[in-house]
Amino acid sequence: MNVEFINPFILSLQNVVQTMAQIELRAEKPEKKVDETAKGEVSGIIGMIGPQIKGSLAITFDKKLAQNMMLNMLGESSDTIDDDMRDLVGEMTNMLCGGAKSLLAEQNYQFNMATPVIVSGERHIIQHKVDGPKILLQFTSDKGNAYLEICFDS
Amino acid sequence: MNVEFINPFILSLQNVVQTMAQIELRAEKPEKKVDETAKGEVSGIIGMIGPQIKGSLAITFDKKLAQNMMLNMLGESSDTIDDDMRDLVGEMTNMLCGGAKSLLAEQNYQFNMATPVIVSGERHIIQHKVDGPKILLQFTSDKGNAYLEICFDS
Repeated sequence: MNVEFINPFILSLQNVVQTMAQIELRAEKPEKKVDETAKGEVSGIIGMIGPQIKGSLAITFDKKLAQNMMLNMLGESSDTIDDDMRDLVGEMTNMLCGGAKSLLAEQNYQFNMATPVIVSGERHIIQHKVDGPKILLQFTSDKGNAYLEICFDS
Repeated sequence: MNVEFINPFILSLQNVVQTMAQIELRAEKPEKKVDETAKGEVSGIIGMIGPQIKGSLAITFDKKLAQNMMLNMLGESSDTIDDDMRDLVGEMTNMLCGGAKSLLAEQNYQFNMATPVIVSGERHIIQHKVDGPKILLQFTSDKGNAYLEICFDS
C-alpha cells in the first residue's frame, strides 16, 4: 500500500473533524499495527469493496475527543458513550470514508462503501482479517486523540 | 426484509458450525434488535454491498461456544479470547457470509463481501447504522450460544 492510497484518508479525517467540529487533528507518522487493542472507547468500522481493492477501515476516538466533537457539533455532550455519541461517530465514519472515496476516485481508484458499524466498550479489541498490511495512523489534539486503521487485501 | 432473505443466513450459519465444528445450533425466532449490547465475547463483522443491497452482518459467539468450536476444529482451546480464537471467528464469519451469498445468488440477489473485522471484549456494544430494520437471530446449543445480526439499508 503506498502513500497515494493513505493520504486521502488522512486528509479526509482531518477535513471532516475540522469542518464538523472545529477541531484540528495532527497526524502522527503511519505505523504498522502491532497492538490490537483499540486505544479509545468508541469505533466506527466500514467495509470497502472495489474492482482493485477490498478492505476495512476503523476509526477509533478516545472518550475525550468524542465528547468534544459532540459538544462542538450539538452544543451539548454526554458523560457516557450513549446512542447520540454512537450516531455521531457513525456519521463521522461515513463522511470520512466518503471523503477518501472521492479523493481516490480522482486517482482512478474506485470502491463502494458498506454501511458503518459502531463498536463501543472499554478496551475493546479490533482485528482486521486481511492478507495485506494493516496501517495505523494516530491523530492528536488538545481536545483528544483518534486512531485510524486502514487495511486492504494485498 | 423478507424471510427469503434471512433464511440463507440462518442455514449458512448452521451449516458452517455443523460442518466445521460438529455443533448443531438451534435457531430461535427472529426478533427486532432492541438491546445493543452484544451477548457474547467475540464478534465477526462484515460489510455487504450489491446492486440491490447494502448492509452489515455481525455474528457474536459467547465464550463457551467459541471455545467449543475451537476445541472441535483445532483439538485444543484457550481460556481467554486470543489471536487463534479471533482467527477462527474471522474464518467462520467469512464462510457464513460466503454461504449465504451463494444461496442468495440462486435467488438473483447479488452482493460482494468486504473483509471481516473481529471485535472482542467483555460487554462490547455493536450498533449497525442502517435505515432499514435490524434483525437479531439467536442460536442455542448445549455447547454455547450465538447471535446473528443482519442489517440492510431499506
